[in-house]
Order: sequence, then structure tokens, then C-alpha cells
Amino acid sequence: MSLSRPLLVLDFGGTKLTAAVVIPGGRAWGDRRQARSPERATARTDLELACGMAREMLPGQTPAAIGVSFGGPVAGERGVVRLSHHVPGWEDFPLAERLQAELGARAVVENDANAAALGEWRYGAGQGCGSLLYITVSTGVGGGWIVNGDLWRGADGLAGEIGHLVLQPEGPRCTCGKRGCVEALAAGPYVAARARDALLANPSEGVLLRARVEGDLSRLTAEHVALAAQDGDSLAWHVLSDAARALGQGIGAALALMNPQRVVVGGGVAKSGERYWQVMRETAAGWTQGVPAPRVEIVPAALGDDAPLWGAAALAEALRRTETRS
Amino acid sequence: MSLSRPLLVLDFGGTKLTAAVVIPGGRAWGDRRQARSPERATARTDLELACGMAREMLPGQTPAAIGVSFGGPVAGERGVVRLSHHVPGWEDFPLAERLQAELGARAVVENDANAAALGEWRYGAGQGCGSLLYITVSTGVGGGWIVNGDLWRGADGLAGEIGHLVLQPEGPRCTCGKRGCVEALAAGPYVAARARDALLANPSEGVLLRARVEGDLSRLTAEHVALAAQDGDSLAWHVLSDAARALGQGIGAALALMNPQRVVVGGGVAKSGERYWQVMRETAAGWTQGVPAPRVEIVPAALGDDAPLWGAAALAEALRRTETRS
Repeated sequence: MSLSRPLLVLDFGGTKLTAAVVIPGGRAWGDRRQARSPERATARTDLELACGMAREMLPGQTPAAIGVSFGGPVAGERGVVRLSHHVPGWEDFPLAERLQAELGARAVVENDANAAALGEWRYGAGQGCGSLLYITVSTGVGGGWIVNGDLWRGADGLAGEIGHLVLQPEGPRCTCGKRGCVEALAAGPYVAARARDALLANPSEGVLLRARVEGDLSRLTAEHVALAAQDGDSLAWHVLSDAARALGQGIGAALALMNPQRVVVGGGVAKSGERYWQVMRETAAGWTQGVPAPRVEIVPAALGDDAPLWGAAALAEALRRTETRS
Repeated sequence: MSLSRPLLVLDFGGTKLTAAVVIPGGRAWGDRRQARSPERATARTDLELACGMAREMLPGQTPAAIGVSFGGPVAGERGVVRLSHHVPGWEDFPLAERLQAELGARAVVENDANAAALGEWRYGAGQGCGSLLYITVSTGVGGGWIVNGDLWRGADGLAGEIGHLVLQPEGPRCTCGKRGCVEALAAGPYVAARARDALLANPSEGVLLRARVEGDLSRLTAEHVALAAQDGDSLAWHVLSDAARALGQGIGAALALMNPQRVVVGGGVAKSGERYWQVMRETAAGWTQGVPAPRVEIVPAALGDDAPLWGAAALAEALRRTETRS
């Protein structure tokens, strides 16, 4: 068995699929491809698409091991997907087993937030930390833990759900059914919806924000809100700072409960500018004051959208080592 | 060196000191003594008192190792106490070093909530769990974590501070300076204070609760509130159920963030009866609903006030094993 055979990594992201190839120990992709999941995607079509990309990247070659990041809960040890909130057919799907049958190599499957936590820890903004909370703020809010020098998945594989921490029991309804979760206060679509509501309720305000979408509020995204806030739009900043405060409160709760060495925050909404970060950090610090107070080390993610892929690479690398040994 | 030399365990509880002796591997105390810390206690007088009890229990004998539970933050690895919130003179006190000088054996020092978590995990209601959150609800609310098969102290030794998780930013002031912490809503003195306020504000209510203290509201404790609630006093139950709900919310946050296998709840206030437990459990479950939802396994502590001592015994036992090996 050649040790130089490449690792294959896959990211089933819900709306898009990414596949990449990396040599063991490598820090740059040999090849990397992305495809949009079709309108009526199912687990079967997503799997076919991913395997197709893999075969194109590795013609006639078997990868040394396969690492997978999946956008949904996973029963980690056996590589079985529990479900997807976006694509039907993933219920109790034995993804590791199916990939091995299709591509001829052993596979390890991890939830995307856990994979991203692992990626940032091994290759990104969390290198050298003994403990870490990774948070991604985008369409939703997810998270993953490194504790006692290892990934902490939770007893049921459900650790890191900072997005569904309740902050305001009477607050806005969240996708999970509860009210006032961090996600319902800080995730992109909620920030956009709150800005839209504020613009409708205050016709004379938010001039710069309205200009960003040429008056078409249906186009409004959290990115528009962040950009308008940076331009000095006070309505946009009001909405954005509320979101930063909610995220800071969630982080503060995590710091009080777990006292991790570092919190790494990624995802599109985390790119909302320096003032957003300042409010988030100050709120988290205020939420944990005490004598003595735990450290508050909150830093931006370093690997961007590739964090789950790099985590999958770390998992594939570890799997390859056990293969080589046995 | 004889392997049958006993282990010495000490609990510096703030208002009382406990010392006990146990043979390695034993599950019952050989001897156990308790003393009240004097009015004007300092670190020095507490240390003298503890060493005095130890010498009385082990006349002319050196313990195999010393395990210590301390009621305050500890810099774990070096056995240095950071401070006590009750007794002066403990600031940066090298307790392990001083005990070794006084009693001739190596010592390991742990914060009391962490020690209790370890005790319940090794010998109590958490046996066999891969992960565990231990919570004590008494004068304050503290906690300790077992994660990935080991005690998780936090990067600064401050993990498990569920008592200072903020639930109501505009709520009652907590000893830590913040508002609406779990402790300020669920700890014994706060439950008593809220009951007192409710009795003063509603002169015709709380007849059974008033009878418990013969009308002398200054004597009122959380235990009176719990007993009156069990008797059917609706004012007492209103106050108690609010406290149970706050604790359940704190536990719900911990479940969402960490998904431990089990939560073990001890301390005097946790003995407030079946309805208290029901509200706590239902609130925690409601705080974590989702698809899929994490398990909610919340059980009473098994070791009572001895949990920190048993954790100290586990630490002493581990220290003895490294001694024997080296």
C-alpha cells in the first residue's frame, strides 16, 4: 500500500456539494470542486453527485481514506447520517458504508460544525489551543467543541448547539419551534427580516440601507445590513448591534459554563465589521464578569468556508493512520 | 512503603472543615471529623484546624496521599488556592505545598464543585457515565464537568459556573455583580428572600409558610419554603417553582451547549420535593426541544455533603498510584 495515495474529503452542505483531494500531511488542496445540489435533490442524487466529482478528481485511483463533513446530525462512530434539514432521504443513511462501497476506501463522517471546529483547531485560528468553541453564524448558528484535547460530540452527538440556546423566552420564533434562541436573534435571515420590519415600520429611516437594495426590500440580506451599518446607517446598525449582542450573550453563557481557552467565530454574518465584533466581545465579557473572571478570547475563523473540509481532512488523515498501522 | 497506608481527605468548606480517612480502594470512611470554622477564621487558622484533625485521626502515621476539596477557585495543577469568598488570607495560597510540609505526604487540591463532580462520577449517581454535569444548589449554585472521560476544569479553572449564567438581564442582583444569574434566582438565600418579600407584600397569603417560622420572617429559609410548598402553601409553591424553573433553564442551556449524558443535582435546595424536580426537568426539556433533541437525564446526587470528600478521595487515590509507580 502506497502512503502517498491522496485523501478524499467531501462536504455535503445542503445546497452545495464540495469535494477536494489532499496528500496526507498536505496544507493545500490538490484539487477542489464544487457543485450546486439540484432543486429536487435527494440523498441518492447528492451521493451520486459527490461520487461523480470524486471519480473525476481521482481517475482510476482509490483514495487512502475519505473524510466527510455533513450538514446535519450524524451518529458519529458508525458514520450514519441521522437526517438533513434541507434534503429528503438522509434519515438514518449509512453514508460511510455507502461511500466505501462506491469508492473503495474507508470513510469517516462528521457533522459540519464539529468538522469545522476540528478544522480550525488543527489548521486554523484555534491551533495550539487545549480547548475551543467554534461557532458559525450564517443561515443558522451552529457550533462545535474541542475539550480535553479532543472533539466533544456530546452523548447523543448534539453538543455545540449554541444556536438553540434560549435568550428571550418571549422572543421571536426560531426554526426549532422555541422562541428567542441565539439563532432567531443572530442568524443572517433573521437579521435581514428584522431590518425589513424596521424599514417598513419607519418609512423615513434607513436611507442608506434602502439604497443598497434599490428600495426592493425582498432582496435584503444580512450582508446589506452590515454594509449599510458600516456606511453609517443607524437603523441598520441598530438591527446589527442587537444581533451582535445576542451572539455575545450566547458566547458569554458558553464561557461561564465551559471556560474554553478560545472562541473562534466564522460564517458570513461574522464578517459584519469591527463594531459588530466589539459589541459581541463586550457583551460576552459582561456576561462572565466575576472574581476571578474567565478569559474572553474571541477571534475570527481563519479557514472560511473550507473549515469543515479541513476538519474532514484531519479525520481522513487519522483514519489513514489507523489503516496503515493495521 | 506500605500500600495499606490510609489516604487523608480534607474539605475546606468556608464555614466548616471536614477531615476523613479512607483506605485505598475503600468505599467507607475509616474515620471522619468535622469542625466549625471559627468566627474570625483566616487561611492560617483553617489550615491549623485541618492539620490538627488529621494528626488526631492518624497519630504518628503519615498518609499515603492527601486529597483536598476547597470552597473557592483553585489553580489546579499546582495546588494553589486563588481565593476564598468567605475566609481572608487564602489569596494565592500554596495549599498543597503547605499540607505536604505539615503532614509529610503529597497533596492534590481541587475546587469543591469539581471535586463533587468527580465524587458523584466515581462513587455516586454518575457512575459509568462518559459525560456528566454536576450541580450543587445550596447557598450558591456551582457545578463541575466530566467530559471525554475526565474532569474538565476550564482553561482558567473556571468551568462549570452554571450559577452565574445570566437568565434575566434585568433580574435580581447576584453576589457576582450581574443581574438575573441562575444563582440569584435559584440558590437558597434568594429563595428565602423572595418568599419573605412575597409574604410582606401579601399579608393574607402564605399562612402555612408563616406558621413554619411562627411568624418570624427573619428565620425563613429555603427549606421552610420547600416544606410549606409540600404542605400545599400556594405562595411558597409559587416562589419555589420559579426557582425550579430558573434552575431548569440553566440546565437546558447546559444541555443545548454540551449534551452531557447525565446531569446530577445535589445541595440542600435540591431536596425540595418531587414537584420541584418535575418543574426543573420539564423546563430543561422545553429548553432543548428540537429534531433530534438531546437526552434529558437529570437525577439527584447520591453522596450528599460527602460528594466533595469522595472526589478528594479519588484524587488522592490517583496521586498515590503515581507515587507508588515512581
